[in-house]
Amino acid sequence: MSLIISIDAMGGDHGPDSTIPASLDCLRENPDLQLILVGNEQILAPLLEHALVEFSGRLSLQHASQCVAMDESPSKALRNKKDSSMRVAINLVREGKADACVSAGNTGALMATARFVLKMIPGIDRPAIISSMPSIFGHTHVLDLGANVDSPAASLFQFAVMGAEVVKALENISDPTVGLLNIGEEETKGNEQVKAAAKLLENSKLNYIGYVEGNSLNAGDEKVDLIVCDGFVGNIALKSIEGAAKMITSVMKESFSSSLFTKVAALISYPVLKAIKNRIDPRLYNGASFLGLKGLVIKSHGGADALAFKTAIHVAEIEVEKNVIQKISEQVEHALSRRENT
Amino acid sequence: MSLIISIDAMGGDHGPDSTIPASLDCLRENPDLQLILVGNEQILAPLLEHALVEFSGRLSLQHASQCVAMDESPSKALRNKKDSSMRVAINLVREGKADACVSAGNTGALMATARFVLKMIPGIDRPAIISSMPSIFGHTHVLDLGANVDSPAASLFQFAVMGAEVVKALENISDPTVGLLNIGEEETKGNEQVKAAAKLLENSKLNYIGYVEGNSLNAGDEKVDLIVCDGFVGNIALKSIEGAAKMITSVMKESFSSSLFTKVAALISYPVLKAIKNRIDPRLYNGASFLGLKGLVIKSHGGADALAFKTAIHVAEIEVEKNVIQKISEQVEHALSRRENT
Repeated sequence: MSLIISIDAMGGDHGPDSTIPASLDCLRENPDLQLILVGNEQILAPLLEHALVEFSGRLSLQHASQCVAMDESPSKALRNKKDSSMRVAINLVREGKADACVSAGNTGALMATARFVLKMIPGIDRPAIISSMPSIFGHTHVLDLGANVDSPAASLFQFAVMGAEVVKALENISDPTVGLLNIGEEETKGNEQVKAAAKLLENSKLNYIGYVEGNSLNAGDEKVDLIVCDGFVGNIALKSIEGAAKMITSVMKESFSSSLFTKVAALISYPVLKAIKNRIDPRLYNGASFLGLKGLVIKSHGGADALAFKTAIHVAEIEVEKNVIQKISEQVEHALSRRENT
Repeated sequence: MSLIISIDAMGGDHGPDSTIPASLDCLRENPDLQLILVGNEQILAPLLEHALVEFSGRLSLQHASQCVAMDESPSKALRNKKDSSMRVAINLVREGKADACVSAGNTGALMATARFVLKMIPGIDRPAIISSMPSIFGHTHVLDLGANVDSPAASLFQFAVMGAEVVKALENISDPTVGLLNIGEEETKGNEQVKAAAKLLENSKLNYIGYVEGNSLNAGDEKVDLIVCDGFVGNIALKSIEGAAKMITSVMKESFSSSLFTKVAALISYPVLKAIKNRIDPRLYNGASFLGLKGLVIKSHGGADALAFKTAIHVAEIEVEKNVIQKISEQVEHALSRRENT
């Protein structure tokens, strides 16, 4: 089975400085992996000289003359950047030359381009963005993280169907639990979309466990594998958590460096502090999948360093190996025909 | 000037175990404070025997025969619990016998009862819940935290007007910065309510700084004194942050107690760990104000211990001293007449 991933080598805040070392590391670790690095040949070729020999047959370079800026409007990128590294990398997926694409570029432009080039899976109304985050139970996966600003109940239901396939693949479990994000666990709570989505989920074959609250993303009372919400809420929850983690680590740094005594304490506690950091390191949770498209696109955080970008490539590798797009298409077809028959 | 606060002594998970020590501590600290403890006389009187002598003239007991359960439906509480400690404490505010009421009881029941008994300030369509949280810059205040499941632009604007008065009082600043919670900082981002609310805020006299993202609650790029959002989003953001903090502290505890070596490191780092805990201790951010009502009601977290409940009483003390309700009424009248004149 082929495992070919196209990499938008120019995307993200650090461009090739992150994407190239991450790519080479992944090639080293997985002998079945093939990568196509897409970007300006003049910039990339000198950086890849040795690697193209070392990974001959598994690493190739595809020229793209343009770059999408991190703050460029999605519509402008779509119209004016037809030879961008992002667009060419996605084209390779459409043409069947790559099984997935990974980019750290501008989220809006990446989503608009992916949607335009790859098209939607029939039966899915809106694409969604899914990612994992650390929880006291291991990981939780959440969608939508910002592809939509509001989602009707039918879309929330579709998100759940698609997300469950991603969780099965990444966590290697057969029947992930699904929760619906709400402002209380009682049936009477919530807005109209959420209440209607709950009905659809109750009548589905998904392992739906009911409403969950915001704390369930990281530390609820029970393990939830997949949490479904609209993109406005999901994006704000994700960024709220990022802010909370940043504040706490900043308070920790400040407290541990406030005096000679605290600096000594930090030195002695170094292995513990490192273990804590590793457990919640956002770089190990990088790589959000765009769902609902006819091809696999993984979005890395724009500020990703090589380690973070490598995590995003890993997500692509697993989702290709587990055939997630094919499974989503089957499940969507199945869920839709089931709803038509009832 | 009088400073009389009615306390729902029976509310919350711990009832009198939290409310009584917190109340007595506040009386000790503020010689101008008078408290009316409301609840079952048979339970409270024996616990207050000495205190009624010690704080003679400043502490009194008001009997209420019923209690609202933490999971009781707001409509049932409103209908069947007319002599609950919560209801009687709020009645005291309406009757002018108390300047504010503090309760750790069931949020929905407290809001429904407060709204029914105290009525809304003319010009305000919906009540809102505001609270502060720690940020790397100090504190941020956020509303609505869950009084509403969706809010039209006009309500978001009213929240900003009301919230600004609370921030002025609690932070002692004259012109707090106001941000609108959104999924991006660009003008094109967001849903229709948020975009329309932004227009109202731009044309107001408030110190509006534009859209802010979820991370601004705790750790944005710049200081924001007040963040406005609808209650669904605000509640989920707040609980997401609570979950993140809980996960991180749980990982810290686990890491620092995993071996003899790490336990020694924890012992040495104890003053630092304590400083970190104090900085982000949620008990020091307890006390959410219900805004939009003709009287002051402060909601304490249900699980509040004595320290947390004391923080909630402090919030009430400051808001009474600064005359927040009167100022909100004036600002609302002013903002409304200004909008009518334009």
